[in-house]
Amino acid sequence: MNSALMNTRLPNREPDSYSFDDMLRKPRLFTAGPTPVHPEASRALVGPQPYHRTAEFSACFERVQAGLRCAFRTAGPVAVIAASGTGGMEAAFANLFSDADQVAVIETGKFGERWTQIAAAYGVPTTVMKLEAGAPLAPAVAAEFVAAGQSLTGMLLSASETSTATAFDVEGIARAVREVSPDIALVVDGITAVGALPIETDAWQIDAVVGGAQKGLMMPPGLAFVACSPRGWERIRADRSTPRFYFDLRRYAESAGKDQTPFTPAIGLVRALDAALAAIDEAGGIGALEDNADTLATATRAAAGALGLELLSKAAPSPAVTAILAPEPGSAPEIIALLRDGYAAQVSGGQGGLKPDIFRIGHIGYVDDIDLLGLIGVLEQVLQLLGHPLDLGAGVAAASAALVQRRASGRNATE
Amino acid sequence: MNSALMNTRLPNREPDSYSFDDMLRKPRLFTAGPTPVHPEASRALVGPQPYHRTAEFSACFERVQAGLRCAFRTAGPVAVIAASGTGGMEAAFANLFSDADQVAVIETGKFGERWTQIAAAYGVPTTVMKLEAGAPLAPAVAAEFVAAGQSLTGMLLSASETSTATAFDVEGIARAVREVSPDIALVVDGITAVGALPIETDAWQIDAVVGGAQKGLMMPPGLAFVACSPRGWERIRADRSTPRFYFDLRRYAESAGKDQTPFTPAIGLVRALDAALAAIDEAGGIGALEDNADTLATATRAAAGALGLELLSKAAPSPAVTAILAPEPGSAPEIIALLRDGYAAQVSGGQGGLKPDIFRIGHIGYVDDIDLLGLIGVLEQVLQLLGHPLDLGAGVAAASAALVQRRASGRNATE
Repeated sequence: MNSALMNTRLPNREPDSYSFDDMLRKPRLFTAGPTPVHPEASRALVGPQPYHRTAEFSACFERVQAGLRCAFRTAGPVAVIAASGTGGMEAAFANLFSDADQVAVIETGKFGERWTQIAAAYGVPTTVMKLEAGAPLAPAVAAEFVAAGQSLTGMLLSASETSTATAFDVEGIARAVREVSPDIALVVDGITAVGALPIETDAWQIDAVVGGAQKGLMMPPGLAFVACSPRGWERIRADRSTPRFYFDLRRYAESAGKDQTPFTPAIGLVRALDAALAAIDEAGGIGALEDNADTLATATRAAAGALGLELLSKAAPSPAVTAILAPEPGSAPEIIALLRDGYAAQVSGGQGGLKPDIFRIGHIGYVDDIDLLGLIGVLEQVLQLLGHPLDLGAGVAAASAALVQRRASGRNATE
Repeated sequence: MNSALMNTRLPNREPDSYSFDDMLRKPRLFTAGPTPVHPEASRALVGPQPYHRTAEFSACFERVQAGLRCAFRTAGPVAVIAASGTGGMEAAFANLFSDADQVAVIETGKFGERWTQIAAAYGVPTTVMKLEAGAPLAPAVAAEFVAAGQSLTGMLLSASETSTATAFDVEGIARAVREVSPDIALVVDGITAVGALPIETDAWQIDAVVGGAQKGLMMPPGLAFVACSPRGWERIRADRSTPRFYFDLRRYAESAGKDQTPFTPAIGLVRALDAALAAIDEAGGIGALEDNADTLATATRAAAGALGLELLSKAAPSPAVTAILAPEPGSAPEIIALLRDGYAAQVSGGQGGLKPDIFRIGHIGYVDDIDLLGLIGVLEQVLQLLGHPLDLGAGVAAASAALVQRRASGRNATE
């Protein structure tokens, strides 16, 4: 036998280096964003870019507007900005507030803090309401806070705080706050929430809801969205001293009326968004997408429970992402590294002080039951490898039972 | 509240039609071919096609030849033909046999029968050895068969019969048969086998081994491969009366010597193959790919056992694909339909008379642990829905334990 033939690696490699490190792994995102891109969106990104000041692009942008109106539950235009989600937050802020305002920020994690930073950049006085990581916010508590700060003209919060995987009762908070301060402007960071928990921009009279492409909408990053209720648009159209040009939402609203964007759009991303919104509609619409995320979150929580793991947010876990406490404090980075290096499965780590202790599993967008059951299956292997006592399959069994129950009952009663 | 806003579907859809049918599903292939395409291969297919009679394409084709030599374990050229696998089978046949020959076909399923059909098309007398579906073939039995047919000049078999998910001991059969008939030409259909079970073209002196792109090599269909041992090439170069032009392997060998193809290659597919072979090398080489398939097959069999399901081939199950008997005879198509309609998971059905009773799960190519655990998870749900008694998670637990054991032990002792 010619021993050279037994070398089944190309010449520049060691013939016998195969080990666990060499096993076949598919890179998969289980993060809270970016999320897996829908294949139709990927396909739309490929190939030559068409010119955008054409009837063809306008027809595409008209469809995109219709899809975004569904996603944000608004009758008005939705600004589509070539920017990251933070650009959308800044646009909402700069169009609704000036240094004559005084805003309250509900700070419960990294993305709540971002509102405070943006307000500081614009020199707008801020009152911060700091919540413990993972803690819920009762609408009455929010209302008391607003009532105590008589001069408040705005309130900024996240619908789903990604860093702590906590959901907020935007509807309840909006209603309670408006009872004590009818004119207060409410701005919601819905970047991780849109597509996971319903936000009724118009019905709840939210002044501005911010979204991003790379979350529930199954898109690559690069687009920010701002939807406003009629009262939001009214306030935006009032003269305001805050300097703004690229982020001037009036320009986006005006252009949207002509099925166009005020500046050169990220053409490929808009075409991909057109494809993604069509795919979302095909899958049952934004409501089905929200139900999917909520179902996967329910199953993930069931698996965590069955594996003896605790959630960071016990009282108000988000349907968009689940933050799980590592069984041993400080071991979360190891769990994340083993999932990544052993299985090419990327989950999110904790941010800031939470980094040693939590890992986060995203449920938004293009994620399905097979993804989740597979991930839980290998998460069990990783936990077992780290010495956490468990029965292989126990987490999957709990997740699977939850999925069966939720899928069979169809649209969930909570929606 | 404006009720129109609650309609989160586009106008042409019913607002409340969401149900199980609308749940988000990712289309996934768990078939024995085509198999999931490696993303680097997909990317290579996109964009303008380069001209092929260039140094650049030659460099690509040289890399492809090096990769295929590893995959087929041969030092000689590997014919790359723009054709389906059947085209490769016909090429091997037409170059090795004429109507002066008398060939034996090991028929154990649909693809064994294909050899008989090809032989008939070329008017080559055939002796068929028919095996029961799923039955193994002892080398001694093959040798007896050849010894009994004194005038046999060739033998054709499948290394892995896809239709019954049965593996054949090609090495043992080749050795035993050559002991009784040293000059017999051996032709192996390795279409499903390459990348799943090792075939040593040169060391085992196989005259021709046929492969296809859409199996272990993580490619879309469209390319067939023929590798030959030195004695195979010698036989092919001898004059033979069989008419052949496009399938004349001498042309492919001659062109490969100049890093080219004799006819216009499927340029995009060759470039994709270059990318796929690089990815295979990156993942540990063809040996790692074979080990991956064998590991997944082992885990699948463990899951089937834990769920009370039987294999079609108990004695010689293939590492490329596992054929599982439905718990109720006749219910296999329902299992397949529920996996497809409920989860967009495509497994293979039985062929011919096996259709009502088996379903087949592929393990070749770009399939990993998360895929398999997820599939077993939803297979359990489907079986439970059909009334098969089981504990959700039991199959996943068995598969997961098998994966942990195999992955930890590295390269399996059987290889």
